[in-house]
Amino acid sequence: MSMTEDELTAVVVDRLSATPDARLREITQSLVRHLHAFAKEVRLTDEEWFTGIQFLTATGQMCDDVRQEFILLSDTLGFSSLIDVINHSDVEALATEPTILGPFYVPESPVREFGASMVEYDDGGEAAVFRGVVTDTAGNPLSGAMLDVWQNAATGFYAVQQPDMQPATNLRGRYITDENGRYEIRTVRPVPYPIPADGPVGKLLGATGRHEWRAAHIHVKASKDGYEPLTSHVFDRESDYLDSDTVFGVKDSLIADFIPGPDGILVCEHDITLALLK
Amino acid sequence: MSMTEDELTAVVVDRLSATPDARLREITQSLVRHLHAFAKEVRLTDEEWFTGIQFLTATGQMCDDVRQEFILLSDTLGFSSLIDVINHSDVEALATEPTILGPFYVPESPVREFGASMVEYDDGGEAAVFRGVVTDTAGNPLSGAMLDVWQNAATGFYAVQQPDMQPATNLRGRYITDENGRYEIRTVRPVPYPIPADGPVGKLLGATGRHEWRAAHIHVKASKDGYEPLTSHVFDRESDYLDSDTVFGVKDSLIADFIPGPDGILVCEHDITLALLK
Repeated sequence: MSMTEDELTAVVVDRLSATPDARLREITQSLVRHLHAFAKEVRLTDEEWFTGIQFLTATGQMCDDVRQEFILLSDTLGFSSLIDVINHSDVEALATEPTILGPFYVPESPVREFGASMVEYDDGGEAAVFRGVVTDTAGNPLSGAMLDVWQNAATGFYAVQQPDMQPATNLRGRYITDENGRYEIRTVRPVPYPIPADGPVGKLLGATGRHEWRAAHIHVKASKDGYEPLTSHVFDRESDYLDSDTVFGVKDSLIADFIPGPDGILVCEHDITLALLK
Repeated sequence: MSMTEDELTAVVVDRLSATPDARLREITQSLVRHLHAFAKEVRLTDEEWFTGIQFLTATGQMCDDVRQEFILLSDTLGFSSLIDVINHSDVEALATEPTILGPFYVPESPVREFGASMVEYDDGGEAAVFRGVVTDTAGNPLSGAMLDVWQNAATGFYAVQQPDMQPATNLRGRYITDENGRYEIRTVRPVPYPIPADGPVGKLLGATGRHEWRAAHIHVKASKDGYEPLTSHVFDRESDYLDSDTVFGVKDSLIADFIPGPDGILVCEHDITLALLK
């Protein structure tokens, strides 16, 4: 007489079977099965359900033109990194590993010369050279590859977060590899920074005993016609939080050294390997 | 070298193991496992992930003091009904079945006399008497039980939805059972109504080939000291949408007849059984 939990789930899944678009049908039916399985597994109470409703509502209402709290939630639950692994790990194992895009990417960065600096504002950051070679998976250098690079300043913030202080194009730029596949960028050493923690996601991090810090990194998108586009990071081996990056972006193969060169300037050597387009 | 999907999920679950509150730890770890399982099962793409982010954001931003779009989402995914089954189906099988509270409950309705009308505004609704007996699971009548009742008007709206038209206490009231456990309420026949469909949830219903209608019903909360409180509905057997109530609230045992009595006025007889408090 009374409908059981599993019967109810089956009724809801069946109700979605009329979805005209096959992919939307697959996604919504799977989502319902997994959401219901979660509630059944933990025996979610009325009060806990309502706490969840309030949390999701507050998360939506924290969003505006420059703040995307649901992406932060996805990031801190490892969901964004999972989507990244699902979609970008089936390239040849020899290619450079991808990691998440993050919320601070701005397209159309200035194209800069080989070896040019992308520092447009001096806040005392530690000078560094970021360089390496871009190759295919057989080790052949790729000339004319595009590297789109962005990172934070010594303040901990990206230019897009400090529009009144940093020039809009500070610490970002597009570089083309030379005839030997090499790139070279003058910059500053990136620093760890907290994700915005004054909203619902920050509260959840606090309640779960977690911090809000990301390990220091430089973002790199690399592309060349005929090759799989890459979105990745380079992490500073001396950074804090490599083992506890709050958005689960660190991969061992993306950790590199910042070592003083003959002139005392730090050098970070990081080679990038692109896979052929499938 | 590269982290697999399952390894990533394990890392995130492990990161939550430091959650001080054991229950929050259990809930967040389970949620991460099930959310990740969903994404892996459907192989969620970057674009689909972002569509989901936008949908959740719009859902949060649709919420205000009188609109709770996340509850509508929970309702239309059968999640609210599931929470109800999980938490309120372990009372003795002989008790009246519960169903969801819905968004239109207002506490502190006027206490009205046995047989009194809760119609305070005439919009042409079909007059009806709603009555029955409240008993324990052995069939003994329960005098002094409280029934807190609310329903919509012939316009399709609850008083709380039409503050400029309906008196605030129209079609809601609290009634006490008499010495024979009986209650009797003069009212109007409830009508089917659409849940608010001008937001993200309405779009999702449309995209999944579903309608936004609820079958006609009267809400009843019943309580008496020493007994499990009940939140339930009574559905009109002649209503449309009994087989496709958009929030999955209909249960066979809660469907009742509206039959003309000797004076031509419709009568809906519905007995209610309360289980002893566990």
